[in-house]
Amino acid sequence: MAKDTKDLERMIGKVPKFFKELAEKDPQMHEMVMKLEGHVWDDGALTRKTKKLIAIAIAASLRDQHATRAQLAGAKSLGISRNEVEEALRVAFLLAGMPAYVYGKAQLDEVMPE
Amino acid sequence: MAKDTKDLERMIGKVPKFFKELAEKDPQMHEMVMKLEGHVWDDGALTRKTKKLIAIAIAASLRDQHATRAQLAGAKSLGISRNEVEEALRVAFLLAGMPAYVYGKAQLDEVMPE
Amino acid sequence: MAKDTKDLERMIGKVPKFFKELAEKDPQMHEMVMKLEGHVWDDGALTRKTKKLIAIAIAASLRDQHATRAQLAGAKSLGISRNEVEEALRVAFLLAGMPAYVYGKAQLDEVMPE
Amino acid sequence: MAKDTKDLERMIGKVPKFFKELAEKDPQMHEMVMKLEGHVWDDGALTRKTKKLIAIAIAASLRDQHATRAQLAGAKSLGISRNEVEEALRVAFLLAGMPAYVYGKAQLDEVMPE
Amino acid sequence: MAKDTKDLERMIGKVPKFFKELAEKDPQMHEMVMKLEGHVWDDGALTRKTKKLIAIAIAASLRDQHATRAQLAGAKSLGISRNEVEEALRVAFLLAGMPAYVYGKAQLDEVMPE
Amino acid sequence: MAKDTKDLERMIGKVPKFFKELAEKDPQMHEMVMKLEGHVWDDGALTRKTKKLIAIAIAASLRDQHATRAQLAGAKSLGISRNEVEEALRVAFLLAGMPAYVYGKAQLDEVMPE
Repeated sequence: MAKDTKDLERMIGKVPKFFKELAEKDPQMHEMVMKLEGHVWDDGALTRKTKKLIAIAIAASLRDQHATRAQLAGAKSLGISRNEVEEALRVAFLLAGMPAYVYGKAQLDEVMPE
Repeated sequence: MAKDTKDLERMIGKVPKFFKELAEKDPQMHEMVMKLEGHVWDDGALTRKTKKLIAIAIAASLRDQHATRAQLAGAKSLGISRNEVEEALRVAFLLAGMPAYVYGKAQLDEVMPE
Repeated sequence: MAKDTKDLERMIGKVPKFFKELAEKDPQMHEMVMKLEGHVWDDGALTRKTKKLIAIAIAASLRDQHATRAQLAGAKSLGISRNEVEEALRVAFLLAGMPAYVYGKAQLDEVMPE
Repeated sequence: MAKDTKDLERMIGKVPKFFKELAEKDPQMHEMVMKLEGHVWDDGALTRKTKKLIAIAIAASLRDQHATRAQLAGAKSLGISRNEVEEALRVAFLLAGMPAYVYGKAQLDEVMPE
Repeated sequence: MAKDTKDLERMIGKVPKFFKELAEKDPQMHEMVMKLEGHVWDDGALTRKTKKLIAIAIAASLRDQHATRAQLAGAKSLGISRNEVEEALRVAFLLAGMPAYVYGKAQLDEVMPE
Repeated sequence: MAKDTKDLERMIGKVPKFFKELAEKDPQMHEMVMKLEGHVWDDGALTRKTKKLIAIAIAASLRDQHATRAQLAGAKSLGISRNEVEEALRVAFLLAGMPAYVYGKAQLDEVMPE
């Protein structure tokens, strides 16, 4: 479990403004979300980097532009390269269609320009 | 690109009956699918193993039971462990809801029993 | 608008058991569904056949196995060929991923065997 | 298969900027996408026009605003009328809910104004 | 069934510009949509308020930003509180993933500010 | 938060076999899921009954047959009537298409027969 916002930031690379507000306005929901986030991203059989790539590919596959962008935002600080994201998006292409790839890649170009 | 069905089998671990029939009945479509599959799974910035975990997580997130099963079927032969799949499904939980995790895990228990 | 169940059957090729029960148990909902169905399938700028192919492709893209099967069930009586369905599913492949094609085609093989 | 970008443009009516960049930066992926696109849109049992209507309806059903717009962009040059798109979106209404129709139609009004 | 636009407005709290245009340009489709809307929102075993919360949660779960906003727009006039929407979005979190909650809540903040 | 499996059972009406196994094999994940479930279903601005109806409607809208069935399984013990589920599914019809209604209702007939 993530101990606090700072700890979560260290783990996933970036904490959206959303979580900061949640901590103030709904501490119980915030604690639960922190626990879930921590449990998902914690070190384990997979590295955080691999999990992040999975998250980006799922978000793109669901056509969830906000989540794709939010997940991409934390990718760079975890040492994820453009090529790695691009290959994760190819899997999204195969499983969820070309648009998942095209717009995942368009957002990659914005968030992690060459 | 995958050279033939055998080559694809070596790469992704299992080739569904579907592709064998496609090769006979619709060689042009089969060739295109082989090319796409090969391009997605080919060695690159990510390992095949990582790509397989991404594919499993996407399929579970889309509530695509057949694709989840099909992707899981090839996981073992790539040396993917139950723990690795379980952690990939946790990301699906976070991004796509608990049912993606629950039924992904149920299928994991069937395809890769402890 | 479809006048009655028989008229709807003539238009879309097959009326699932569901609608027959709905007519008995919830006449108001049934009337509304009939009106909507009629409005969608009625002759217009597109033929019923084209609309049916669109419906099959949408259902496969949404991984909605029941709807895919239900729409396929009515296809044959509208004079839709296996090749036409297969090409509609290719579009689903491009827009929604290979699994939409694979399982759409698997269901095609069951409902409209060669 | 589409021979080149120009050939693809002739077939589907419009080639997004995305593909032009892909051709320069990732020729292998571009070739694969061209092959897939060509295979999907090539003349066959269905006309390109019918396939385009299927693509628009799928994109709207998946709430994929970018893909809906991208597919609509190529519709006019294939001789597709507003009424034909509207009827395709009615099928999306039935299969995927009213919002698929409402926002498909809103985009139609922008891309193909009366 | 809703008798007219005004009646529908009284029932669901807000009628988007879309329906007003539809009434002018496609009276038959408009009548059908009015009938369906009326049938869904009419008083019955569930209150309109409960149905509205269900609609908001579905729209957020489908990552349908437009529908989420459209449904939220009518919530206030039905006497729905921020807390009620927030709890409905928690169910969306559980069933459809954290992003459904995060962006549902972001839109709630815009449409129904504290 | 739910104190234990029994407490969760009291709250949502039925605890799938899945959670029992999770408690034994992965206590940390189980604790986290219990916390999330408890936070979602706990008394608040909305009743558990209303939340359950929301969950059923989301699951049907996502074409998630397992989740639909799992949520329906707990509905009866919360005092939810067939009519209430049917009206929740009408909202799913409007927001997510007729198949969401048809198969939600088919599962309702199995899980809560008249």
